[in-house]
Amino acid sequence: MNKRLVVHLLGSILLIEACCMLPSFVLALLYGDGDALALLYPMLLLLALGLPARFLTSPRDSNLRAREGFLVVALAWVLLSGFGALPFVFSGLIPNYIDAFFESVSGFTTTGATVLSEFDGLARGVMFWRSFTHWIGGMGVLVLTLALLPQLSGRASHLMRAESPGPSLSKIVPKLGDSAKILYLICLALTLMEFLLLILAGLSPYDAAIHAMGTAGTGGFSNYLDSVGAFQSPAVDAIITVFMVIFGINFAVFYRALTGGVRDALRSEELRWYLAIVGGAMLVMSFIILPRYGNFLTALRYGSFQVATISSTTGYATADFTLWPVAAKMLIVVLMFVGSCAGSTAGGIKIVRVAILCKLGRRSIRHTFQPRKVQVVRFEGKGIEEGMLSQIATFFFVYISLVFAGAFAISCEGLYDVETNFTAALSCISNVGPGLGAAGPVENYAGYGPFAKLVLSLLMLSGRLELFPILTLFTPAVWRRA
Amino acid sequence: MNKRLVVHLLGSILLIEACCMLPSFVLALLYGDGDALALLYPMLLLLALGLPARFLTSPRDSNLRAREGFLVVALAWVLLSGFGALPFVFSGLIPNYIDAFFESVSGFTTTGATVLSEFDGLARGVMFWRSFTHWIGGMGVLVLTLALLPQLSGRASHLMRAESPGPSLSKIVPKLGDSAKILYLICLALTLMEFLLLILAGLSPYDAAIHAMGTAGTGGFSNYLDSVGAFQSPAVDAIITVFMVIFGINFAVFYRALTGGVRDALRSEELRWYLAIVGGAMLVMSFIILPRYGNFLTALRYGSFQVATISSTTGYATADFTLWPVAAKMLIVVLMFVGSCAGSTAGGIKIVRVAILCKLGRRSIRHTFQPRKVQVVRFEGKGIEEGMLSQIATFFFVYISLVFAGAFAISCEGLYDVETNFTAALSCISNVGPGLGAAGPVENYAGYGPFAKLVLSLLMLSGRLELFPILTLFTPAVWRRA
Repeated sequence: MNKRLVVHLLGSILLIEACCMLPSFVLALLYGDGDALALLYPMLLLLALGLPARFLTSPRDSNLRAREGFLVVALAWVLLSGFGALPFVFSGLIPNYIDAFFESVSGFTTTGATVLSEFDGLARGVMFWRSFTHWIGGMGVLVLTLALLPQLSGRASHLMRAESPGPSLSKIVPKLGDSAKILYLICLALTLMEFLLLILAGLSPYDAAIHAMGTAGTGGFSNYLDSVGAFQSPAVDAIITVFMVIFGINFAVFYRALTGGVRDALRSEELRWYLAIVGGAMLVMSFIILPRYGNFLTALRYGSFQVATISSTTGYATADFTLWPVAAKMLIVVLMFVGSCAGSTAGGIKIVRVAILCKLGRRSIRHTFQPRKVQVVRFEGKGIEEGMLSQIATFFFVYISLVFAGAFAISCEGLYDVETNFTAALSCISNVGPGLGAAGPVENYAGYGPFAKLVLSLLMLSGRLELFPILTLFTPAVWRRA
Repeated sequence: MNKRLVVHLLGSILLIEACCMLPSFVLALLYGDGDALALLYPMLLLLALGLPARFLTSPRDSNLRAREGFLVVALAWVLLSGFGALPFVFSGLIPNYIDAFFESVSGFTTTGATVLSEFDGLARGVMFWRSFTHWIGGMGVLVLTLALLPQLSGRASHLMRAESPGPSLSKIVPKLGDSAKILYLICLALTLMEFLLLILAGLSPYDAAIHAMGTAGTGGFSNYLDSVGAFQSPAVDAIITVFMVIFGINFAVFYRALTGGVRDALRSEELRWYLAIVGGAMLVMSFIILPRYGNFLTALRYGSFQVATISSTTGYATADFTLWPVAAKMLIVVLMFVGSCAGSTAGGIKIVRVAILCKLGRRSIRHTFQPRKVQVVRFEGKGIEEGMLSQIATFFFVYISLVFAGAFAISCEGLYDVETNFTAALSCISNVGPGLGAAGPVENYAGYGPFAKLVLSLLMLSGRLELFPILTLFTPAVWRRA
């Protein structure tokens, strides 16, 4: 274990977090809601810990092995969430530290599950920080570190692989640091576009910023109890629906569209699966809820928003879908598992994996009656090697197992029912936000005890980091000397 | 497609079913409940169809390819259930044919899900037939055909593979026909043992036979509304608990115990996993329900019975576990997925697959921090080749997908809630019987509409035949000329 290097890297990440708090601190000063100190103190603490960790350690060996890469990523996310919770505690918004940690994990992992049951419209600096964690968490804090500290670039492929969502690392240009910069620029441009459109639709700049950042990170924190439903505006619903679908797309596809044209980008097989699944689910959902809303356009407005919010794992709400027909809820559960494209800010199992698993299933059926025929599974036009296929299928097993293990663990507190606890665990690992039953969109997670909140926090982190970095933390062999 | 051979084989199977109805017919004559004709007519129908199909077709080519093998198995089970439903209709026990088909599929697949909401203690011949389908369905009707018609043996490995539960065909002796005979003898001996013990515990011979057959097939049909709970006897509970666990064990292990001694049999890795999971779950369950039952012995009695009935996918009940704490229900859901050993009469994903998937999961975790180390997954001391691993992981994906697809399909009727419909679909594909919510152990499936009943029947058949034979029926390529 190259401890010096691990401490050195973690120090850099703490410094980055301090910088990330700066915009919220400035806003807090401008608004004068009295929450500026709640942001200043954590910044000073981060500087006090980060500066010596970064500059007093000079790693002799700058070679980062896979083991250390995964450890750094897992620890970094735990630390980021731990310090990111402090503004909530210091401002009195969430006085209990475990609750604040849950909220912070939920922010960074872009889940959007909240313990807040009331908003007084104050502490706007801290509330901005809450939504800003979605934005940096969605793109990846390590990716940000890479973009800002290009000297890491050479040894950082393990870092970026551990944090990037999807089965393979999508390097869009040869240099990792450049890739990171391009990704952040695309995300920034899209966020600004949504921000401006929301202002045009009548939102205040503050509300527009909060909801644009929540969409961009596919997070889902709102500064209203009724979430996006508070605006009662078909235009806002439509803008956010479209941008939720957009932020579920692999960012490499946007780069491809910018460099090779839209027609080239549309050749992406994952994009086609994604649009087919989301489009199909929107239609089916609208038909299921049609009797509830009377006319098809209204049903389509609410149905497509809800499909977009679940598929993109954002978690905004315009309707209480726990009151919808049981078929609608079952569809929501399935969409929670699937999630969006790899290389987006969204969570879930990811379209690329689901598509490959479907192809594997078809191969198994064919194998029963053509046992001797060799069948290669192809994706994006390329044959996928058997080792990768078995990795993907194993990922699916581990994902399902963690959902059930988590659901069982939180059930040991004795609260709620099977539907609530199962969907709460699923919603957290898929980084969606709301579940069904008592974890539904008009409810929140405040009712769970501290044990359940820690279990759900672990599930959120596991889901965001694609399971294995967090699981390695619990593997004794990783901690042993090599 | 070798149509003559397919018809020839299906004819033989119809004749076997006619023979299987004979004991129930004789019982009906003896009891004189007036249901003898309800069994006689289907027997005559089966003979009228089976005799020409069997003896007027002389297949020129007696070579059975994989494609035909799977088709024969899938069609055989549909036909068996279709004709097996007739006694229920003719006797007036279940007048609606779709309900009767559901009940018949539930019997043959050893599920034990019922549409009956009242028993008047009459029609004992037909009720015996209902439980007898568990016994023959558990061991496999094709296996029975093989045992009785040894001339099939040479070309029957595809048949037996399609019907035998588990990832690989457990041939215990070189000749398939002999294997089939030995399996049936072991099953018969164990059933008789349980039958005698239940009589010693005070049951009437009829009740003892019904419940012994239900245990042997891990089916779960009872002739009492309160299932095994009706006897209010700790001794009966204990006997049935032990035999449910026994019938969840791979029958090859019993053969190994008979020929090589118990110590040799205990070396089976699958057996160890099974006993560890069932024993562990019994302890955990008893602690969860301890506050409900006051003392540990009573909690152990009900907890271990319920774990045994779910793990072995039998489905008998001595308590209404829908009233148990949410953690107990979550544990039941997990056990429903897992099921019992391959090569037993039980359903579920099977211990061997779950064990191998756990090892695959551990390998994936290790792979993240030791990416270059080649790691072989071993089971029963042997390394498993990658192709088989990917087959098993794919099986898991298809299983979960069918549960959710089925749950969504039955939800489209608009009845019940997510918990009920999800566990109904899961319970049916795992051949358990009861689910949670409105599909719980004191409820029944009569409330679902005909569409849901057909979907659930398909799930039961898919589960019993390990998914792929039934799925091939829906694959156009199978039906095309080779």
